[in-house]
Amino acid sequence: MEKHIITISREFGSGGRTIGKLVAEHLGIRCYDAELIQKLAAESGFDENYIKEAGEYTPGGFLASAFTNRSFGPTNEDLLWKLQYRIIRELAEKEPCVIVGRCADFILQDRTDCLKVFVHADMKFRADRIVRVYGEREKSPEARLKEKDKRRAAYYRFYTDMNWGNAANYHIALDSGVIGIEKSAEIIESLA
Amino acid sequence: MEKHIITISREFGSGGRTIGKLVAEHLGIRCYDAELIQKLAAESGFDENYIKEAGEYTPGGFLASAFTNRSFGPTNEDLLWKLQYRIIRELAEKEPCVIVGRCADFILQDRTDCLKVFVHADMKFRADRIVRVYGEREKSPEARLKEKDKRRAAYYRFYTDMNWGNAANYHIALDSGVIGIEKSAEIIESLA
Repeated sequence: MEKHIITISREFGSGGRTIGKLVAEHLGIRCYDAELIQKLAAESGFDENYIKEAGEYTPGGFLASAFTNRSFGPTNEDLLWKLQYRIIRELAEKEPCVIVGRCADFILQDRTDCLKVFVHADMKFRADRIVRVYGEREKSPEARLKEKDKRRAAYYRFYTDMNWGNAANYHIALDSGVIGIEKSAEIIESLA
Repeated sequence: MEKHIITISREFGSGGRTIGKLVAEHLGIRCYDAELIQKLAAESGFDENYIKEAGEYTPGGFLASAFTNRSFGPTNEDLLWKLQYRIIRELAEKEPCVIVGRCADFILQDRTDCLKVFVHADMKFRADRIVRVYGEREKSPEARLKEKDKRRAAYYRFYTDMNWGNAANYHIALDSGVIGIEKSAEIIESLA
């Protein structure tokens, strides 16, 4: 079965987003990452920064949740999840594309034309990269990575009921630190 | 860093062994799987079938363990593990090769010239395959696969203290059911 949609889940700092962009560029299709957040912001009225953050916080973990209570109805994160679910389904319906993050692999799990990719790398590679590429100023990039990993795993677990980073959830999982950003993109392209 | 040794961990029925053989054939190197078991048998004096089975039983889970007690010393499985550890280290030292199973990824984890591969596939693909390729006669190949998965995971966990099938433990993880046996071999070859 040909794969028209490529979803990329990735550990923070692994270069998964860069890989997604490269793949999309080479295949001549769109890559949704920042654009997805803009769409979510436009349709929800939430601030883009809030959406970025909310994509990594499970309801209850996020500060805002201290002031909300699920027994009174859905949280902001739940509303965003529903919107994100609908937008990702619509994007996949419309045209071939690459979608980075936002549990798109789970949201599109019933589509047989969807290639599910996971990108990871060891702590050292990612720590070096976030300092170099993102100019992270924190004293310990490792501590920042661990916190990010924890949040993404908890968010994924909360909404999908699956373990983040479990090889069986993806068609291909790549260590970008060992395989390299360009080579990883090349392998994914050859599968699309 | 160039990769001279390729270790392949695999779910039962995923075709990981076949992929290992293809890769070795194309690269003109040896593939240790059955040969590894023969070596273990020759050096340990244990029967080959026993070694095959013991590679999937954790001490305590295996029937024989009912008659042994760790407080009186190492079990047969422990002795086999030590031997397997030494043989795999020696093989990797000697020449480039493919090693299938037997926790070789863990045993060689300090070698930077080792490419760690995990091969998996969904239940349907594997069930069809074990009936077709191995002529499995069991009423439910799915039940047989679940039992095998459970044993391999427990064995891996017991000796390595890591989770089997966790993407982060491997440089590349491939769904052979979606990507295909030949294409999986081709991707691995391109990384060696």
